[in-house]
Amino acid sequence: MRISQKVKRILDNYESDNPGTKGNLARILMHGKLGGTGRLVILPVDQGFEHGPVRSFAPNPPAYDPHYHFQLAVDAGLNAFAAPLGMIEAGADSFAGAIPTILKVNSSNSLARPKDQAVTGSVRDALRLGCAAIGFTIYPGSDDQFAMMEEIREMAEEAKAHGIAVVIWSYPRGGDLTKDAETAMDICAYAAHMAALLGAHIIKVKPPTAVIAQDAAKKVYEAQKIDVSTAAKRFAHVVQACFNGRRVVVFSGGEAKGDDAIFADAKAIHEGGGNGSIIGRNTFQRPRDKALELLGKLIEIYKS
Amino acid sequence: MRISQKVKRILDNYESDNPGTKGNLARILMHGKLGGTGRLVILPVDQGFEHGPVRSFAPNPPAYDPHYHFQLAVDAGLNAFAAPLGMIEAGADSFAGAIPTILKVNSSNSLARPKDQAVTGSVRDALRLGCAAIGFTIYPGSDDQFAMMEEIREMAEEAKAHGIAVVIWSYPRGGDLTKDAETAMDICAYAAHMAALLGAHIIKVKPPTAVIAQDAAKKVYEAQKIDVSTAAKRFAHVVQACFNGRRVVVFSGGEAKGDDAIFADAKAIHEGGGNGSIIGRNTFQRPRDKALELLGKLIEIYKS
Amino acid sequence: MRISQKVKRILDNYESDNPGTKGNLARILMHGKLGGTGRLVILPVDQGFEHGPVRSFAPNPPAYDPHYHFQLAVDAGLNAFAAPLGMIEAGADSFAGAIPTILKVNSSNSLARPKDQAVTGSVRDALRLGCAAIGFTIYPGSDDQFAMMEEIREMAEEAKAHGIAVVIWSYPRGGDLTKDAETAMDICAYAAHMAALLGAHIIKVKPPTAVIAQDAAKKVYEAQKIDVSTAAKRFAHVVQACFNGRRVVVFSGGEAKGDDAIFADAKAIHEGGGNGSIIGRNTFQRPRDKALELLGKLIEIYKS
Amino acid sequence: MRISQKVKRILDNYESDNPGTKGNLARILMHGKLGGTGRLVILPVDQGFEHGPVRSFAPNPPAYDPHYHFQLAVDAGLNAFAAPLGMIEAGADSFAGAIPTILKVNSSNSLARPKDQAVTGSVRDALRLGCAAIGFTIYPGSDDQFAMMEEIREMAEEAKAHGIAVVIWSYPRGGDLTKDAETAMDICAYAAHMAALLGAHIIKVKPPTAVIAQDAAKKVYEAQKIDVSTAAKRFAHVVQACFNGRRVVVFSGGEAKGDDAIFADAKAIHEGGGNGSIIGRNTFQRPRDKALELLGKLIEIYKS
Amino acid sequence: MRISQKVKRILDNYESDNPGTKGNLARILMHGKLGGTGRLVILPVDQGFEHGPVRSFAPNPPAYDPHYHFQLAVDAGLNAFAAPLGMIEAGADSFAGAIPTILKVNSSNSLARPKDQAVTGSVRDALRLGCAAIGFTIYPGSDDQFAMMEEIREMAEEAKAHGIAVVIWSYPRGGDLTKDAETAMDICAYAAHMAALLGAHIIKVKPPTAVIAQDAAKKVYEAQKIDVSTAAKRFAHVVQACFNGRRVVVFSGGEAKGDDAIFADAKAIHEGGGNGSIIGRNTFQRPRDKALELLGKLIEIYKS
Repeated sequence: MRISQKVKRILDNYESDNPGTKGNLARILMHGKLGGTGRLVILPVDQGFEHGPVRSFAPNPPAYDPHYHFQLAVDAGLNAFAAPLGMIEAGADSFAGAIPTILKVNSSNSLARPKDQAVTGSVRDALRLGCAAIGFTIYPGSDDQFAMMEEIREMAEEAKAHGIAVVIWSYPRGGDLTKDAETAMDICAYAAHMAALLGAHIIKVKPPTAVIAQDAAKKVYEAQKIDVSTAAKRFAHVVQACFNGRRVVVFSGGEAKGDDAIFADAKAIHEGGGNGSIIGRNTFQRPRDKALELLGKLIEIYKS
Repeated sequence: MRISQKVKRILDNYESDNPGTKGNLARILMHGKLGGTGRLVILPVDQGFEHGPVRSFAPNPPAYDPHYHFQLAVDAGLNAFAAPLGMIEAGADSFAGAIPTILKVNSSNSLARPKDQAVTGSVRDALRLGCAAIGFTIYPGSDDQFAMMEEIREMAEEAKAHGIAVVIWSYPRGGDLTKDAETAMDICAYAAHMAALLGAHIIKVKPPTAVIAQDAAKKVYEAQKIDVSTAAKRFAHVVQACFNGRRVVVFSGGEAKGDDAIFADAKAIHEGGGNGSIIGRNTFQRPRDKALELLGKLIEIYKS
Repeated sequence: MRISQKVKRILDNYESDNPGTKGNLARILMHGKLGGTGRLVILPVDQGFEHGPVRSFAPNPPAYDPHYHFQLAVDAGLNAFAAPLGMIEAGADSFAGAIPTILKVNSSNSLARPKDQAVTGSVRDALRLGCAAIGFTIYPGSDDQFAMMEEIREMAEEAKAHGIAVVIWSYPRGGDLTKDAETAMDICAYAAHMAALLGAHIIKVKPPTAVIAQDAAKKVYEAQKIDVSTAAKRFAHVVQACFNGRRVVVFSGGEAKGDDAIFADAKAIHEGGGNGSIIGRNTFQRPRDKALELLGKLIEIYKS
Repeated sequence: MRISQKVKRILDNYESDNPGTKGNLARILMHGKLGGTGRLVILPVDQGFEHGPVRSFAPNPPAYDPHYHFQLAVDAGLNAFAAPLGMIEAGADSFAGAIPTILKVNSSNSLARPKDQAVTGSVRDALRLGCAAIGFTIYPGSDDQFAMMEEIREMAEEAKAHGIAVVIWSYPRGGDLTKDAETAMDICAYAAHMAALLGAHIIKVKPPTAVIAQDAAKKVYEAQKIDVSTAAKRFAHVVQACFNGRRVVVFSGGEAKGDDAIFADAKAIHEGGGNGSIIGRNTFQRPRDKALELLGKLIEIYKS
Repeated sequence: MRISQKVKRILDNYESDNPGTKGNLARILMHGKLGGTGRLVILPVDQGFEHGPVRSFAPNPPAYDPHYHFQLAVDAGLNAFAAPLGMIEAGADSFAGAIPTILKVNSSNSLARPKDQAVTGSVRDALRLGCAAIGFTIYPGSDDQFAMMEEIREMAEEAKAHGIAVVIWSYPRGGDLTKDAETAMDICAYAAHMAALLGAHIIKVKPPTAVIAQDAAKKVYEAQKIDVSTAAKRFAHVVQACFNGRRVVVFSGGEAKGDDAIFADAKAIHEGGGNGSIIGRNTFQRPRDKALELLGKLIEIYKS
């Protein structure tokens, strides 16, 4: 595998990692149509766990089949495909070597009351399934956040020792956080920074709004005249919170929405120096040709 | 053991599993009168734990003896016999090789208040007792659901590494779920899908009703015009939720009921593409000859 | 050690156990005056933990000394002596080989509020102290029952792998159970059955009353016309719940009571097919000669 | 090391222990001015943890230095010195071989609300620091008592396997216990007995009062006419609860008090057959020469 | 590395530690401009975790980059740099050998409700990253304090066995403690003493106020006429609580404040015999040249 200069510089930021882990990061960063650019588009399919199969796949029934998603990610030229254990198991052999996979090792569901997730996969699973990385969600703010952080700490240590990269979904939720606070600028940057401090190689957060939720933070935004009035500036601010760009950060698309909004997000991420998008429902809930079309355009934005 | 083309195609869906685990799945799928058809009838006897010995066995006292159930399963030509530790221990040697066994490794009882189960067996037990699989119940929705999922995750990893198949009983219960919701169409499909994502080889759920319990799901059923008005369509919908048929799914019979209802269920399961029935009280609570007769007819339905 | 035909048939029921474990069961079943009959009388001395030393030993002060109990069990020709760690440690060397011992590995006390017990001994302890078995109490119904069951599951697996037999004290308590329900016929049979399903070799329960506590069970007792009007019939019903007699079941004596009541119990146990008595306070709280006299008569009943 | 006949007889009571553990018990029993008499005086310095440094050491500031206590115990000719990890670490090398040490492996503090302690040392620590024993506090009656008992069970098993002796501080506290009940005669005897059953080699309790706290116990005290009207009789009663004297039992001094009260306690302990005193604040909170004088007199009492 | 006489004497106080651990303590004590003096200034950068990236780094944006802090610590000639996992990982290779690092292995955040921290690093991490020590925060008084103490106990045992030094941040908080009590003289001394008893090599506390929070302590301060009226006397009192100076103790700067206050603190620490300062926000939140200037002056104070 040839490593581009751009990717080489990114890998250099992971200076404490062993060659195995860097190799897996490189697999993700060099794969697909954005391979070598330092930008990524990842397909995550854990919505069946989070929202149930009907809400996730009924709009486009072929998506009930795990192979559909592997093939979509491959054909769209994405960087990686992320999913929970059972879905990876169902296609790992057919698509071995075809696309880097990220084993999502914890999951919640819409029947649950606590703001927590169940650990549903392991580093050992990732190894036997040939995954390049594990993915783990933390809920900063939740009363279970410390337990979640301790779970990923332990799994990340094991992953790094075995050459597996670590992706952290950092989603503020629970505790004293209001709905607005969950996507507030200060909270989002905080969530991204904590993921970086926890040792994530790749950080996934939601696009932040212009809300500032914490009073103590608000004072600083005002005193330092930090401008977060545009999406691009907000994405750039999150990049800053990720060790000033030393860690790869990608943004989720959130709920299904119009294509224009998706492209606007991507342009702003690109402009703000973010590394890319992780986009699920907006792709697999539409017919395959439409999904490929949308992903193609998205990739063009990041290539520009 | 000759493997039929039908079973070979089913095994191919378990593409990440090692030959040991596939071998045990094959033992179950190739055994008995339905061997090779891709359909199964399994005898589960954990009701003594769940409801007590009197409610379970007094209607047919020979059933107090564990050997009775082994023999019934063998003589009826079923695919497998599932029971908790003590019951398997009591017959494993006498019936070694006579029928594939599934060690039910967790159990609740009718004296319990929390919606949880105790882990009462292990993979190591399954290995020493020559079992083909472990069986584990999760209660999606329960406040203990994450802990239960983490237990089976750990046990499933160990099972798969040792060539033991994994059967998940996925029974929504507890939390905010109403009694009706427990068997609602959307919840049942969700429960089956989560079992698949947790890495189950065989999924066991209850037959769904036409109720849709979650508002967010209801919108999708309506928008997508999903027809779940007949039992067969509901079973087919559950099959879809099991990775579009890539995972074996069987349905429990529920409370003791009339034979016609049992046969109607089986026909609908068969028509909907479900893999079979797991039927306990409706067999062992009647005299042995009646039970054999009922099981014989059931098998005929699945053979048709 | 010569094994009687009677004991050989009992051992055959433990068909999944290794020769080490069967050997230890045989040690208990072949020891003492009832050796070889398939009947047992066991001396348990954990009352010091459960009720305190004064309530247990002050009526017969020599009983403060652990050696007193070892010697009593030996001289009375009992099958085994059961006690917590410290008491076994205090006599295990002096009485090595003189009588099979059962290490009681969990204990509660009368200062405790939760319906639970502390694990106070281990399989490793049992091995170093030359014990034939471990003894463990579960409280079916208690809110801690699942944790207790998981503790004995783990210890039983370890015990069986090391050739140590497992005795379960199954005492319904806590949760929604009323005082009456704790010794009700249906609950007692249920408790015995759960111990059997948990893999116990020897089951210890309290003598059941004629009360039926659960409505769902009551219907079955009535529908099936199950006669539990006499003590012997109730004991026989418990034996049935123990895999139709495939597992050894003994009955505790409960609070100190008149000798006639004790003998009546034993006769009924014997008549009902129960395997024997486990009798503590009614023996060691009276002078040694009186205790030997009582135990002698008890043994005669079981020999008849 | 020459072992006196008296100590030999005591060691014989620990009949299940390995030579390593007996050797460490012998080190304690043969050391200092009371060496060989079967009586002990131990210096415990965990008050800094329990009450803070100022309340513990300000009355005699040299006592802030860990070496002060080692030296005091050595110079006074005591049997052993007990303290938490940091304090033992601070002097273990300077005083290696000079005096047997007991590593206090759990501790509470006066800022804590739950009736529990933190485990703050390990058997491995005891081994690397050359300690003869570990010391552990249980709070019988506390809602955390079962967890505490399970902690010492596990540590005691490890200690005994590595030749380390086990000292249990058994202090009833919490739950339904009133302040008076904590030192009541029946509760103290019960606490001592539970420590013995948990496998302690040396038991430490507080001097009991004449109060009888439990109704069920009161009946027995009255029925059996147990006389606990004098301190000596109460100490003798505790000795009885320690396997009729088969286990070494020492009594703490409690709060700082007058010398006469201390000597009276010691005389009563001696008369009642108790093995000695464990005395902290009453020694190290006074000037060194006064402490040596007091300890000298105390030792004389036990030598008489 | 040449070890000064001063440092040699300090190392002698850690008499139970192995040469590996002493070597790492020596690395810290001999490094930088204060190397060999027995005094230290340490740069801690865990504020991004505790308060978020914006509140921590926005006042001086280059500080978003982990390398900034490594370089600052190196250029200022400090003794060590302390930070959570991700930040150490981001610079450990570039600055290998350039400055001793302390891996902060637990962290809280301002979104959390419980007074607890998540374990976010391990001894194994410290070893692979070449750290000289681990840093761990306890919250004495918190309802989670026992769990925190047990975490550091386990990690400290592992650290010491692998030659890694242990730094404990002892910050009273939670439970019944008022805000004033958190920095009260008696509580601060108590917190420092507990850290020492837990086996810390280096203790970090906040500067104490003249408040005495506990009644029982107040009596002793009055009775013993302990003068804590000046900062220097209060620092000396804390040193006394650290085994009379046998353990290194450093003081945090607390919130950003005027330079004069910082220098006054340092002078008082120096006069009181404290070992130094651990100072974060007051340095990295100002421009680099100003920070170097401030640190230079601070070092001069400790050199005087």
